[in-house]
Amino acid sequence: MKIQKQLPVNACRQAEGFMRRYQKLVKDVVIPYQYEVLSDRAQGAEKSHVIANFANAGAVLAGKDGGDGFYGMVFQDSDAAKWLEAVAYSLELFPDEKLEEEADRLIELIRAAQDEDGYLNTYYTIKDREKRWQNLMEGHELYCSGHMMEAAVAYYEATGKRTLLDVMIRNAEHIYRHFITEGNDGCPGHPEVELALLKLYRCTGDRRWMELARHFIDVRGTDPHFFAKESKRRGWTLWGMDVEDVYYAQMYAPVREQTDAVGHSVRAVYLYTAMADLASETGDASLFQACRRLWESITRRRMYVTGGIGSTVIGEAFTVDYDLPNDTVYAETCASIGLMYFASRMLEMDVDGEYGDVMECALYNTVLAGMQLDGKRFFYVNPLEVVPGISGTAVTHRHDLPQRPAWYACACCPPNVARTLSSIAKYAYGASEHMGYCHLFVGGEVDFGNGLVVSCETEYPYGFTVTYCVRKGSGGLSVRIPGWSRNWRVLKNGEECAPEVVKGYAYFPELAAGDRVEMVLDDRAYFVYASGRVPADTGCAALKRGPLVYCFEGVDNGGDVLSLTVDTEEEVTAGDAPEGLPADVVSLRVRGFRREETEGLYSSRRPGQAACEILAVPYYVWGNRGENQMRVWVPYRI
Amino acid sequence: MKIQKQLPVNACRQAEGFMRRYQKLVKDVVIPYQYEVLSDRAQGAEKSHVIANFANAGAVLAGKDGGDGFYGMVFQDSDAAKWLEAVAYSLELFPDEKLEEEADRLIELIRAAQDEDGYLNTYYTIKDREKRWQNLMEGHELYCSGHMMEAAVAYYEATGKRTLLDVMIRNAEHIYRHFITEGNDGCPGHPEVELALLKLYRCTGDRRWMELARHFIDVRGTDPHFFAKESKRRGWTLWGMDVEDVYYAQMYAPVREQTDAVGHSVRAVYLYTAMADLASETGDASLFQACRRLWESITRRRMYVTGGIGSTVIGEAFTVDYDLPNDTVYAETCASIGLMYFASRMLEMDVDGEYGDVMECALYNTVLAGMQLDGKRFFYVNPLEVVPGISGTAVTHRHDLPQRPAWYACACCPPNVARTLSSIAKYAYGASEHMGYCHLFVGGEVDFGNGLVVSCETEYPYGFTVTYCVRKGSGGLSVRIPGWSRNWRVLKNGEECAPEVVKGYAYFPELAAGDRVEMVLDDRAYFVYASGRVPADTGCAALKRGPLVYCFEGVDNGGDVLSLTVDTEEEVTAGDAPEGLPADVVSLRVRGFRREETEGLYSSRRPGQAACEILAVPYYVWGNRGENQMRVWVPYRI
Repeated sequence: MKIQKQLPVNACRQAEGFMRRYQKLVKDVVIPYQYEVLSDRAQGAEKSHVIANFANAGAVLAGKDGGDGFYGMVFQDSDAAKWLEAVAYSLELFPDEKLEEEADRLIELIRAAQDEDGYLNTYYTIKDREKRWQNLMEGHELYCSGHMMEAAVAYYEATGKRTLLDVMIRNAEHIYRHFITEGNDGCPGHPEVELALLKLYRCTGDRRWMELARHFIDVRGTDPHFFAKESKRRGWTLWGMDVEDVYYAQMYAPVREQTDAVGHSVRAVYLYTAMADLASETGDASLFQACRRLWESITRRRMYVTGGIGSTVIGEAFTVDYDLPNDTVYAETCASIGLMYFASRMLEMDVDGEYGDVMECALYNTVLAGMQLDGKRFFYVNPLEVVPGISGTAVTHRHDLPQRPAWYACACCPPNVARTLSSIAKYAYGASEHMGYCHLFVGGEVDFGNGLVVSCETEYPYGFTVTYCVRKGSGGLSVRIPGWSRNWRVLKNGEECAPEVVKGYAYFPELAAGDRVEMVLDDRAYFVYASGRVPADTGCAALKRGPLVYCFEGVDNGGDVLSLTVDTEEEVTAGDAPEGLPADVVSLRVRGFRREETEGLYSSRRPGQAACEILAVPYYVWGNRGENQMRVWVPYRI
Repeated sequence: MKIQKQLPVNACRQAEGFMRRYQKLVKDVVIPYQYEVLSDRAQGAEKSHVIANFANAGAVLAGKDGGDGFYGMVFQDSDAAKWLEAVAYSLELFPDEKLEEEADRLIELIRAAQDEDGYLNTYYTIKDREKRWQNLMEGHELYCSGHMMEAAVAYYEATGKRTLLDVMIRNAEHIYRHFITEGNDGCPGHPEVELALLKLYRCTGDRRWMELARHFIDVRGTDPHFFAKESKRRGWTLWGMDVEDVYYAQMYAPVREQTDAVGHSVRAVYLYTAMADLASETGDASLFQACRRLWESITRRRMYVTGGIGSTVIGEAFTVDYDLPNDTVYAETCASIGLMYFASRMLEMDVDGEYGDVMECALYNTVLAGMQLDGKRFFYVNPLEVVPGISGTAVTHRHDLPQRPAWYACACCPPNVARTLSSIAKYAYGASEHMGYCHLFVGGEVDFGNGLVVSCETEYPYGFTVTYCVRKGSGGLSVRIPGWSRNWRVLKNGEECAPEVVKGYAYFPELAAGDRVEMVLDDRAYFVYASGRVPADTGCAALKRGPLVYCFEGVDNGGDVLSLTVDTEEEVTAGDAPEGLPADVVSLRVRGFRREETEGLYSSRRPGQAACEILAVPYYVWGNRGENQMRVWVPYRI
């Protein structure tokens, strides 16, 4: 059962601060820029054609000429959905008539592109209506529906406008008819609609959508070879996907029996998010146990220190335990976003700091690194080591780019970052009937919806004091104590106190208006060490401060970071941002050694080591000052 | 021009010792076992069908039933060729009537499988004669011819029997007609025939074969897109190879303009071997310069410390400078064999110790590691780091097996090891009119063919004194001083002396019968360090003694080598072979530290380090005591 629930986006009026600046960037730059891309008007970006696809599908349905037809990936529609969802959250934060009008116009195109029977997908509507529902593996029809349902719910909640919601209810009814009423078999090749249907259920109160979500979750893996059979039955393919691979789409066993996080990492975490959400909606203990096992599989054996997941480009997938290469890693931005969603749903039924810690780690490192500081360029893949000349160049490293490109043919990540940052309140705060929960430290005024209204002040992630004041009402407050904070103290109304701490959360059960809780976290930088089972990190340490993982870039270190060894026993000092980075960025200076170069490729002469100062910057800002070497893990002197 | 030339295999009567034991193993185990495989009689090995293919092709040509047709890879014939070549060399070392009879029977089958016009290839003869010469990229017709020419020359030189030689002369005439007389365009997709034609030229004195070799070398890369055009022209494919990839088969530029070693690494070094051979036969300076550039590209930027080459399984290929991952490496056994051949040909025109050093490194590390100590199992891929659970399992590591399999569907490496070890004298010794050259240290009596007969005594690679005695005649002797030997001394007739040393070779210009030259090399183990530009090796050292690279295996180190750090300033002590390894093996004991395990995947607690002793064994014996962790590069304490 849900112990506490995500708050709606508008429950948090955010104060100026780190996250607010990102949300403004999303509003001022990311959303307009992405609209230009979706409209094929952005210079230097790959063509999107998303809006044209909807217009053309509408024309086809109206018996008119379909214009220049469909262009893009089969899941191109979802880019519009994620953009609309980001717009919805942004409108809650920053009302904007012009933007809302643009969104309404797009929604009109979407409405017109819906078939009479509720079907909605421009690829099939334009290209081949006969092929609908024949290719669940590659077809992405349910995936696109899922994203559009999420957008519909968000847009309705932000604006009160039902057009898109009604479109997506009709679409959900169509899907329900196909899979439940008519009993056609199968489940989504790319999980997504499950988590969306649960949102639609909560928004509409219609239990059919929860039933449909449960159906897809329950069906998955009962016939591991369903997609192979489906492929044989239809006799055509979109891009020759390996339908025999039972791991790629988490089909290897019924979900309640799954133990390892496998396959395409975004598919995995979207699925697990829905499983956790359903488990807490229904109190399904075996489903919760499966979620817990999969959570542990990821976070204890298959996750990067940056909260990145997915060790390989081959299938954009998890590999095996402790296989965490830093240079050929995938660590898709979307996968870390999905990991945040999974963590947030786990938190709803199990208030445990480890979920919040991982959510925070993924957010402040991989998710933020996914976007250039100017909001105009994006990483799909987030390497922990970049060496120009190898990264992005060697055939094994083609995907690990040393610089963010402007847009991708497969553009799932950019709008995903936008929607996640704009709705950060959902992940930062939660509430039960008598308690407000603070999972992430985001400044602003929060209405927990249970009578309690609390303000939060903080300079996080660069300041380590978080102050909560009860503005209205009374009740309990529960605040995550980050696992990374070796020392911390809490003051209640100015007096140090010792709150009850349960599973990483400090509880203040009885607060009244005017009460003030101040949490002072550890501001010291610290090194972390990976398990000795991770071959890629042996002999190495990574540097963190608060939730931020730091990295070493060539631009700050004479061009060469490969020759550096850090001394993790020396003091680390915090300093200003280096030139070219925003003023709020705190750099770290560590002591270490620079190795002299060998003569030739291999040399038996022990290379000299010169003591030196080494500068580190937060991982999320890497690659913002031109192409250069970058490393998160560096050798340390034992 | 050739300053000195490879000796024939029979010029060296090898003494008991390290290499002789390997040659006996090849004779007693490898050759008979491989014959069983080729005859499809070996238990537990993949089916070969090589001999049946020849029988069936002969039947087809005789107008009879082709039996069970063709089975295997398109280049399956070459396995028979390499086996025959190994048999030829082995017969020179160990006359064996029964083996010679077996070889003669196979040669009869081969003769019968040759078409009237001289064409010889069982794949096309059995499956589709119309497709001959249409697919130089994938077809391997020239590759198979090349290997069979090498076998023919070797078998003729060993036995004086001309049957196979005449078959291959007719085959060469057929190829000459097709490419020279008729002027059909193209060059081999897999270089090999070029180096074989040069052997055939030297064996027969017929300059047409050198002309044909030069033609193929000159044509390569003049039209980088030849294979794409060829593919379009024929309209069919064998396995869908990427014909647009101009690097894979070294087609990106005319060979004299090539600068980087690229593409499929075996193709590359077979090509460069022929280029070097041709350059020295013809005195072609621009071709020598190209060879030199490619040599430097490999050995200064793209070679493993084990003499392995080819950083990736994708295309079994070179990647880019300094990209030398230890765990996902390819380092095919055949590629290191080809590197030995290339080095040997470079030595013929440029007596420089660096060629001998690399040849020795490839031989004693990667090539020997390619074979299980029992001679029955083989590595195709030679990783420098193996972690069971990841290696051979993760999708990125499937090719890096933790144990040698019995045979491969693509079985190029096993017979290649056999033929190379049996003919080691060719690479170990060379001669000019007035000088004998000693490139590798292989005990035995060597007739340099210029009047000088010298015996060599040594326990190499485990003993470091090499003693040469002039048995007959007089003349000069030139001995490589290994680059790895920091200290060395030479005694002439018991007196320390200071010979002239030029480019890594010590010269003794005037020796007479009874003269004795004793070279004492450095027997101390030493650590090597990679260039700081190699990301995979930063913070790490590798251990060597003499030419042998050592490695750290789990079985000798409590199961876990990932937690080890070596202290490269402490003394290394040599010791006996651990249980389960041959008695001659010298183990090394180094001081170091074992790191304690972290709590969880990442921990901010600095792990304790316990001083410990670490045992290392030669890399070439790794994986002979069951599946376990193995590392060549380990972190070292700075």
